[in-house]
Amino acid sequence: MTETTRYSGGGFVHIKNPHLEAMDEDVLYHLDLGTRTHDLPAMFGDVKFVCVGGSPNRMKAFARFMHKELGLEGDGEDLADICAGTDRYAMYRVGPVLSISHGMGIPSVSIMLHELIKLLHHAKCRDVTIIRIGTSGGLGVQAGSVVITDRAVDACFQPRFEQVVLGDVVVRGTDLDGGLVEELLACSEAIPDFPTLVGHTMCTYDFYEGQGRLDGALCSFSNEKKLEYLKRAHDAGVRNIEMESTAFAALCGLCGLRAAVVCVTLLDRLEGDQIRASHEVLQEYQQRPQRLVAAFIQRRLGLRAAAGNTRPSSD
Amino acid sequence: MTETTRYSGGGFVHIKNPHLEAMDEDVLYHLDLGTRTHDLPAMFGDVKFVCVGGSPNRMKAFARFMHKELGLEGDGEDLADICAGTDRYAMYRVGPVLSISHGMGIPSVSIMLHELIKLLHHAKCRDVTIIRIGTSGGLGVQAGSVVITDRAVDACFQPRFEQVVLGDVVVRGTDLDGGLVEELLACSEAIPDFPTLVGHTMCTYDFYEGQGRLDGALCSFSNEKKLEYLKRAHDAGVRNIEMESTAFAALCGLCGLRAAVVCVTLLDRLEGDQIRASHEVLQEYQQRPQRLVAAFIQRRLGLRAAAGNTRPSSD
Repeated sequence: MTETTRYSGGGFVHIKNPHLEAMDEDVLYHLDLGTRTHDLPAMFGDVKFVCVGGSPNRMKAFARFMHKELGLEGDGEDLADICAGTDRYAMYRVGPVLSISHGMGIPSVSIMLHELIKLLHHAKCRDVTIIRIGTSGGLGVQAGSVVITDRAVDACFQPRFEQVVLGDVVVRGTDLDGGLVEELLACSEAIPDFPTLVGHTMCTYDFYEGQGRLDGALCSFSNEKKLEYLKRAHDAGVRNIEMESTAFAALCGLCGLRAAVVCVTLLDRLEGDQIRASHEVLQEYQQRPQRLVAAFIQRRLGLRAAAGNTRPSSD
Repeated sequence: MTETTRYSGGGFVHIKNPHLEAMDEDVLYHLDLGTRTHDLPAMFGDVKFVCVGGSPNRMKAFARFMHKELGLEGDGEDLADICAGTDRYAMYRVGPVLSISHGMGIPSVSIMLHELIKLLHHAKCRDVTIIRIGTSGGLGVQAGSVVITDRAVDACFQPRFEQVVLGDVVVRGTDLDGGLVEELLACSEAIPDFPTLVGHTMCTYDFYEGQGRLDGALCSFSNEKKLEYLKRAHDAGVRNIEMESTAFAALCGLCGLRAAVVCVTLLDRLEGDQIRASHEVLQEYQQRPQRLVAAFIQRRLGLRAAAGNTRPSSD
């Protein structure tokens, strides 16, 4: 667990910003929270797991599911959105688990992460694990498969994230926590009803042209060129494609958060571009990463026995 | 109106995708609409104005406001979300006006625009004007000012949008409709209670480091470097900063939609980074672009006399 050891530092998140301590107040604008208006340590101090995903409804459903899985009192139907004062993001808390939506794409997830990481810092949270529970397009894998990301790569299959700072490009690494990948994979062994695999995840800035789709409002390439590109991605180890993982990995890594990405594939992009499965099928697919992550959290909390032969890493 | 003439072509939107006609069905996945499941020409055929903005609540409020301004029957309180089957975007229709949310950032607005443009194509809409009604950070302008964008520029102040296609970067122009800028500015003359100006709008991929903020989870630069960057932007003609305009201008331009960007500034970035105005003040600020665009639509529809000396351009 060198990765984890390197990350921790009293277990607190790392705020790499010397200006922040000099501020008398920090307004987390897009979360509708702030250091003067809210007692963040009291509200969030004992959070240990943060789960994030694009859709607010899905993250609400996940919070309800976790409520049940953790055996908490009540039916979990009346969970309040902590960010109710804004519609940019939705946030729910159940026990030590925070469930937050991040919208679609790198800019949207980045805003949420900056404010979430400051929240965890202000709340003095320790030893937090963060997992993105997402949807994606698969590459040579059966629709409905769950991919645990071992490496987040860009559209050129490189493990890097380019951040523009004051007009200049800064290149950042996209390392994820190797121990977490193993732990999640071990948990999947106890859930035999869907395939789970480990692979690279490609992150793009665009769903249509950026992912080689032939069905956007614009398309300047042939089916052959598309397949050539997707096959190159597959040869490079990419097993699914989504729109947040590189920025998520880079930002969480720099701030000392152990991070994982677990996405279900809604289709196999080698077979098509359109998502045509029924609402019911897609709903069930979207529950798969939630089930895997719920099992992981239960195991971490000692509520479920370890599955498989891999020993869980400890905090 | 050479700009407009160049854009039109029977007034239909331009789908630049030879593959689309061969598809027997087009599922607009993120809008929860499709060519087989919905009669798009009946639902949308006579739409003439599309207004888009980040927040779903704001776009619902705008639809209600337009309902009132257009003098339609009923109180507009029970407007249905046309995309109710998904929480990715929200869409409302009032008379010839479509009001749609696009989330935050270029990837999110791009997904919406690809599907919206295909929707307008399938519905056989003609002579559609599209306006982004947004929020932004101001640059050397009073908080609450409304900026009509004459040029959308990137973080290096260039009027370009870089789109990755199959791993390669394609550079696109970000021209907006000059006639629309004049028309909107003329409408603003009848609304004296807030300042409206024309200026360049800088579009970034990130709200914190990308816009030179000192208050993110990460910040590696000094206040001096930040101000140096923002002043260079101001010298280049930038009057506000947001996160969608270059992609919006590029995609709408390529598809033959007359497009405008009208954003209110929530603060002056030369004076600070945090958005600290009260909810009430911010709410009123956010209504300003809505009021301007409502006046524009009323004038186009002949419901309001032309203000000022500028003659409106005709369709």
